[in-house]
Amino acid sequence: MTTIDREIDQLVREELRGRSPYGAPQLAVPVRLNTNENPYPVPAPVVAQVAEAVAAELAGLNRYPDRDAVALRTDLADYLGHGLTADQVWAANGSNEVQQQLLQVFGGPGRTALGFTPSYSMHPLLAAGTGTTWVDGQRGEQFDLTAEATAAQVREHQPAVVFLCSPNNPTGTALPLPVVSAVLAAAPGIVVVDEAYAEFARPGTASALTLLPEHRRLVVTRTMSKAFGFAGGRLGYLAADPAVVAAVQLVRLPYHLSALTQAAARAVLAHAPALLASVTALKEQRDRLVTELRARGLAVADSDANFVLFGGLGEQQPVWRALVDRGVLVRDVGIAGWLRVSAGTPAETDAFLTALDDVLKEQR
Amino acid sequence: MTTIDREIDQLVREELRGRSPYGAPQLAVPVRLNTNENPYPVPAPVVAQVAEAVAAELAGLNRYPDRDAVALRTDLADYLGHGLTADQVWAANGSNEVQQQLLQVFGGPGRTALGFTPSYSMHPLLAAGTGTTWVDGQRGEQFDLTAEATAAQVREHQPAVVFLCSPNNPTGTALPLPVVSAVLAAAPGIVVVDEAYAEFARPGTASALTLLPEHRRLVVTRTMSKAFGFAGGRLGYLAADPAVVAAVQLVRLPYHLSALTQAAARAVLAHAPALLASVTALKEQRDRLVTELRARGLAVADSDANFVLFGGLGEQQPVWRALVDRGVLVRDVGIAGWLRVSAGTPAETDAFLTALDDVLKEQR
Repeated sequence: MTTIDREIDQLVREELRGRSPYGAPQLAVPVRLNTNENPYPVPAPVVAQVAEAVAAELAGLNRYPDRDAVALRTDLADYLGHGLTADQVWAANGSNEVQQQLLQVFGGPGRTALGFTPSYSMHPLLAAGTGTTWVDGQRGEQFDLTAEATAAQVREHQPAVVFLCSPNNPTGTALPLPVVSAVLAAAPGIVVVDEAYAEFARPGTASALTLLPEHRRLVVTRTMSKAFGFAGGRLGYLAADPAVVAAVQLVRLPYHLSALTQAAARAVLAHAPALLASVTALKEQRDRLVTELRARGLAVADSDANFVLFGGLGEQQPVWRALVDRGVLVRDVGIAGWLRVSAGTPAETDAFLTALDDVLKEQR
Repeated sequence: MTTIDREIDQLVREELRGRSPYGAPQLAVPVRLNTNENPYPVPAPVVAQVAEAVAAELAGLNRYPDRDAVALRTDLADYLGHGLTADQVWAANGSNEVQQQLLQVFGGPGRTALGFTPSYSMHPLLAAGTGTTWVDGQRGEQFDLTAEATAAQVREHQPAVVFLCSPNNPTGTALPLPVVSAVLAAAPGIVVVDEAYAEFARPGTASALTLLPEHRRLVVTRTMSKAFGFAGGRLGYLAADPAVVAAVQLVRLPYHLSALTQAAARAVLAHAPALLASVTALKEQRDRLVTELRARGLAVADSDANFVLFGGLGEQQPVWRALVDRGVLVRDVGIAGWLRVSAGTPAETDAFLTALDDVLKEQR
């Protein structure tokens, strides 16, 4: 990484100076359980279909893609269900870009965004990148958000944009819908519910999509990175009121979604059941991780996601390092005493638990 | 297009209210010469290679792509030449995203960007989308920029970011390097030279890339949309000092470039000579358009691009409409009395000239 010397640094915006680019350390170890990737490759029959769909676009790449990605948005709406249609859906290169666009339209200079730490650490970075003032809201001792405490913070800060995350990253727990409703009732502006991990939720967990008909200022963001195993394809999207979708288009870059991305995502969506089979397998490993870690006397947050946050480690950095030394990469999300581990294949769970037992034994 | 009603509109940032999303009208007519697309499809042997490169990525799409796109940036540096290396190159989903990132780092709230109208109309929109104050600089009567007049405006406004465009869109004329040098000497901040059409320049036109070794605040942006016929693939890039590239990474969205985009762009770059053959053909049609339009007594700006701006039409809107009625779509860029036409295939030039003659005859 090149350093930014003084001559160039003085031209950089004040609030960005001295920062590092976002991103987990990428280390070449055998077991990577640090970025909540889906460990299952796209199945071979689906690969063949996607390859065909993408190849069909190549000769026409000299022309710009559909600026409005209408066919893809229609497919995404069909996948989401809840009676949604294309005019209620918007897509971009990852849900980060969707959320950045939301901040460009509804946040920005002189406006505030409120989130509840610990949560997805890109939210405050997107705020910084769009000149939006970020306010770190507070959670309870168990990382919990109650309707009352959350709404009170919204009333206090009057944010133009509120970020909720359900299931929350890095804690893993889904938010009860009454909390979302309380925030919607208190918020003067847009309420974004980041549901990147929604497909992994435990039975009985309702999506904020069910609140859309009643709430025009609600935006639910999703991604194909996790459940669909499409992290390398970069496709995030949102569901919202058609007027919100129209407003986002005021700041979208023209032709922001390539013809290849649109074609590949549509081909993958056409095989949703085949791809979502991995979700069932990952939920099993997730539940296994929760059970096994609790059996070891560790603190474990309830998980509705494809990862588990576990604590009671004392200092977490030496444990992280000791796991890396044993070929297992998990994520230190900066919460004292806690680490996050992604649900992987059964063999990866085995490897993680074996390495962890080894580390814990050495510590004692 | 859904309208943004009052309830949602009042949540939109003041400076965006009442705007329309950027984009030329997309009409289904036989001859589309409105968005400076390359009319030549990617050649079949190259399509086969790109298809293979993209297909090889599909099974691994469950993993995030290389966040830093190092291999692609290496290939882009090799293509540009001038001794450039990967640490001096940055890439994103179109040069619009590259320029947006530059404004996020070096522009933004409380800072000013200066451009010289008429020029690429996305520059002021990117400024609005990043909270950067936009100043419309002035050109001479013939759309010209002299070193003295340009530098004087830079001194007056003290912009954090200056946008130059060479060859300029929509006029088509390349900027003499002494103008760029004068701006660099006068500017307190970053100077962006948008060279989207550089490959089409007339012989003897120097690229601002030649100034990079002397100027750390210079950024040259390029695109694969035009010369490479890769508009649907969405790949823009910049060349600059390594510290500028490092600074841009502070605001890039993590994993902003999909594995498919990276693979497809690399495969296309590997066949640069085959693809750039179309540039020669397009320059011939461009020169033919200049000659033929001048022979009709019309005003025509010198063109170093794959399009031609022509004037002396009286009101341009009725001419635009009459051409559409004859199956030819050109671009009304909002300059009274002028229209812009892209260089297409010889048959498309024929069709355009025939339609134009018909329209002009009717007018007289």
